Amino acid sequence: MTDVVVVSNRGPGSFRIEGGRPLRAPAGGGLAGTLRPLLAGSGTTWVAAMLGEGDRLAAGQGLMETDGIRVVPVDVEPAAYQMAYDVIANGTLWFCHHHLFDLARRPRFDWHWHEAWAGFRRYNRAFANAVIERAPSGATVLVQDYHLSLMGSMLAEARPDLATVYFLHTPFAEPDMLEVLPASASGELLRGLAGFGACGFHTERWASAFRRCFEDGVLAEGAGVDTVPPTFVAPLGPAPEALARSAEDGATRAALARLHEAAKGRRLIVRVDRIELSKNLLRGFQAFEELLETRPRWRGEIVFVAFVYPSRELLAEYAGYRSEVEHAVERINERFGTGDWTPILYDPADDYPRSLAALVAYDVLLVNPVRDGMNMVAKEGALVNERDGVVVLSRRAGAWDELCDAALGVNPFDVTGTAEALEVALLMSASERAERAERLRASVRARTASDWLADQLAAARR
Amino acid sequence: MTDVVVVSNRGPGSFRIEGGRPLRAPAGGGLAGTLRPLLAGSGTTWVAAMLGEGDRLAAGQGLMETDGIRVVPVDVEPAAYQMAYDVIANGTLWFCHHHLFDLARRPRFDWHWHEAWAGFRRYNRAFANAVIERAPSGATVLVQDYHLSLMGSMLAEARPDLATVYFLHTPFAEPDMLEVLPASASGELLRGLAGFGACGFHTERWASAFRRCFEDGVLAEGAGVDTVPPTFVAPLGPAPEALARSAEDGATRAALARLHEAAKGRRLIVRVDRIELSKNLLRGFQAFEELLETRPRWRGEIVFVAFVYPSRELLAEYAGYRSEVEHAVERINERFGTGDWTPILYDPADDYPRSLAALVAYDVLLVNPVRDGMNMVAKEGALVNERDGVVVLSRRAGAWDELCDAALGVNPFDVTGTAEALEVALLMSASERAERAERLRASVRARTASDWLADQLAAARR
Repeated sequence: MTDVVVVSNRGPGSFRIEGGRPLRAPAGGGLAGTLRPLLAGSGTTWVAAMLGEGDRLAAGQGLMETDGIRVVPVDVEPAAYQMAYDVIANGTLWFCHHHLFDLARRPRFDWHWHEAWAGFRRYNRAFANAVIERAPSGATVLVQDYHLSLMGSMLAEARPDLATVYFLHTPFAEPDMLEVLPASASGELLRGLAGFGACGFHTERWASAFRRCFEDGVLAEGAGVDTVPPTFVAPLGPAPEALARSAEDGATRAALARLHEAAKGRRLIVRVDRIELSKNLLRGFQAFEELLETRPRWRGEIVFVAFVYPSRELLAEYAGYRSEVEHAVERINERFGTGDWTPILYDPADDYPRSLAALVAYDVLLVNPVRDGMNMVAKEGALVNERDGVVVLSRRAGAWDELCDAALGVNPFDVTGTAEALEVALLMSASERAERAERLRASVRARTASDWLADQLAAARR
Repeated sequence: MTDVVVVSNRGPGSFRIEGGRPLRAPAGGGLAGTLRPLLAGSGTTWVAAMLGEGDRLAAGQGLMETDGIRVVPVDVEPAAYQMAYDVIANGTLWFCHHHLFDLARRPRFDWHWHEAWAGFRRYNRAFANAVIERAPSGATVLVQDYHLSLMGSMLAEARPDLATVYFLHTPFAEPDMLEVLPASASGELLRGLAGFGACGFHTERWASAFRRCFEDGVLAEGAGVDTVPPTFVAPLGPAPEALARSAEDGATRAALARLHEAAKGRRLIVRVDRIELSKNLLRGFQAFEELLETRPRWRGEIVFVAFVYPSRELLAEYAGYRSEVEHAVERINERFGTGDWTPILYDPADDYPRSLAALVAYDVLLVNPVRDGMNMVAKEGALVNERDGVVVLSRRAGAWDELCDAALGVNPFDVTGTAEALEVALLMSASERAERAERLRASVRARTASDWLADQLAAARR
């Protein structure tokens, strides 16, 4: 795949400095963690931001390859990077696509924000320039995620020879929500996206929201676009073999033993999530509280295992949300806990083996996001779980489209409905559990990460 | 109009108790204040809730007529009333139709809420029963506003002889926002509305959002409806003569003199609003702050007159919002105020002559709601203003559709854009101001409250 260029904010590896030398940092998860094994050894070029002094030092020393992937580092000026990444990508576009704005108060497009948008444009321009300079003639360019939404028109103008594909890992905003942005910004965003040869999404729902934005009179006029770009749907799935290996390894098994000891043989409701507003941790705990409040039979019988990990701690919204979540946990544990039983086992450490152990062990997996591009936890859980556990899944997660026949669906805003679904899951017969778990595994196995990458390459060829 | 029945939560008059006797309380504003003069002396029947002991005492004594309107009081049990009015109508449906949910946290449909929804159903049933019992055969029934959304199907089932029309004074939620409600509730809501002969809205935008909800696969399936009810668009306008009389009366003129004295001859940016999350007071003040921050020439030259009045103070969201608003005012006044000049003249008293005086006197009227069914302040201001003032108007207010040629449009989330519009208004030439003010008046005069009522009656005849 030497004629393929992948573009994403985070690259396949990063460096820290130790003793004055650049040292490869442990690989992270997320998008880069998904793509790296797919591209390893392929000779693909991967354009990604330099994320710190370690990366800069490594680039200066020519350490430009990771796992047989040729890395092209983009050196974005730190001020523009911070504005693009924190203020626009994570502070605005993430909230917009996930419908998380508290519109009476936020967003607030003041002059600081408009300056940040200019930084976002420069950030996209820096990535575009790297591709424009380095991509072989006629190459296929796969641009990943909301950070890089403006690149399409930049590439189309300078390098019409390239086959460009965009893939969005979040939902896409409904027209009314995209109209919240200043018209200049939403216009630039839609023009940027319209420049790609094709735009891909995890589900038809996000693809159709995207098309509705282009068909919306106000947005289309503001953007000066008159056609809807080609779209495709390519759900991402886990890589089953790698996941199975991780579930079997010693660290996971040790974490599993610790979990069973802590739960003292009680049945487990599990959630594994970033501490993130879209994940809906608060209502998950409230649903558990309502279950304990209205069905006392469950008190002392079950443990809610919340293995969550911090995210975007520099954004005030996230720090505030985390503290609300932790207060809810304390309140519920205080209200119902006994000397022998802590209702919620809450642990906000970033510990992958611990999270994976919880997925192996759940009786019920609660995945209740208010809106979610895909949600890989639901799929990974289905694959590694060893107890015929039941998945209680938000109908607003992208994964719902694939898992709706086997998971129990909930409206994530309906605390009562979620409590009821948890009880239905706890009371489900062993045979129905086994049958649903088998269907879940079959649905997940039907789509792997390789299929997802292949779909993007196919979209580029069309 | 003895064969017309009007139905709304609040009736044409209410009673308080003084010395053990029911005494007519001063008439309020809002919907009832609009309808009362239109129906006075017409012999129309008006079905409305008894709102307190005074109303109950009056009803017991047979005081059932106000201004030649026959009042049918509906005695809703207080617990159901509180749940229907506070929890569902104002605490849920208002937020839903105005897109005000902070979805990471609210709404939260727990068992208290589900109980409140049952109260909302009983409240609608009590109104429906009053109509079913009292409406003459073949009568026209005009049901007003979001509180009474469930009545349509109740009336259609029991009294197919009636011509029923619903009019919604708020926006209507986009499908994705209506899907936030539990499917049982959104289904009941859509079925209730589908029972009306026609549903009316202030603008085509809300009518088309309504139709999209019926066309949305998930919502339509949940509701079990397969057709879109007939809709019509009937913008409400002020009654020009009554408004002109109020603007001329002594109390208004006295308030005007006090206002001019307080402003010391400075030019006036004015806002007149309920203290209400949809009205966007916070970003209005932030825009004024950005104007002062980035264009120092205006410091000491202008006064922002914020004559606002409390609303729904029993709802925690409103108390919280009011305190945020007042902190913003204090902060800005502290930051820029001098011994001689207070930048923001903030007064949260419920004082109609004072509000009307501010509309008479504005140089710039700021009306920047995040979403608003119509917004009568923009229209009333245009009619009574005596300074060729400029209206800076949110494109998300219903009034925008009628006033877009003459007002300056803003994106209500764009603080910078709003600050710019305020400056454009302040710098506008006298001739352009006069010309725009004339066009504003012409647009507003083109539609009166009588036209609005006539449109509802016409919709009933179709």
